Amino acid sequence: MPESPYDDTNIFARILRGEIPSETLFETDEAIAIMDAMPQSRGHCLVIPKAPSRNLLDASDETLAALLPQVARLARAAKAAFKADGVSIAQFNEAPAGQTVFHLHVHVIPRYENVPLSSHSGEMADRTVLAEQAALIREALRAL
Amino acid sequence: MPESPYDDTNIFARILRGEIPSETLFETDEAIAIMDAMPQSRGHCLVIPKAPSRNLLDASDETLAALLPQVARLARAAKAAFKADGVSIAQFNEAPAGQTVFHLHVHVIPRYENVPLSSHSGEMADRTVLAEQAALIREALRAL
Repeated sequence: MPESPYDDTNIFARILRGEIPSETLFETDEAIAIMDAMPQSRGHCLVIPKAPSRNLLDASDETLAALLPQVARLARAAKAAFKADGVSIAQFNEAPAGQTVFHLHVHVIPRYENVPLSSHSGEMADRTVLAEQAALIREALRAL
Repeated sequence: MPESPYDDTNIFARILRGEIPSETLFETDEAIAIMDAMPQSRGHCLVIPKAPSRNLLDASDETLAALLPQVARLARAAKAAFKADGVSIAQFNEAPAGQTVFHLHVHVIPRYENVPLSSHSGEMADRTVLAEQAALIREALRAL
């Protein structure tokens, strides 16, 4: 059971409604992929299902079945785009697990040999840098 | 592209073949769930697809579509079994991202308020403790 009901004023719901901008990488019927505005590594991005759920704990099987193939697609593209040495996938359920936005989302975090992750500092990345990185990922998606 | 071809001598392939024991939580046509023998928190468990792939990067969409609903089922059960405050999901691709066993697997890690994760120490958990925890998760799975 989720801790609280879904609240559609969260930032990802607002991005999905087009109320605030994001650096979109792809969109399918079920999900969008965007750059994380507070990246923990170069190329940190997110897959966000369109269906409203707080997190994995209250998501439908249908939403979840559609989600992981898209996460893998983005992981392959991000790894290629940045010549990363690996990719970490992370998904947090409830605040004690690290969840800060209460709409289901999956982190795709390119990893580089001997480079530790930055902490989620709350500091926004430079928009120009994110746009450049997004262009590289879109190019890699086309080449998959 | 995966870094190296799949090698079926890895420990999860051996567990899937029944060559070495594990504390099994459930088994479906596509996956097994087991206790992590080197837990990072109380109740840390894993979902392992039966299909051979090194990680997310070379897994089929079919394998991935079947996987995340099972991860969610286990997350719900583990959270209930241990009255956890949250659940972290983690999946690592290639060694620089933290992958140590090169057969696709997803970590389901119950989280507790103000309890940091243990590092993956390489130390095996007590088998009796794992068996007790597994019994709690199986009971919670039945009650879902």
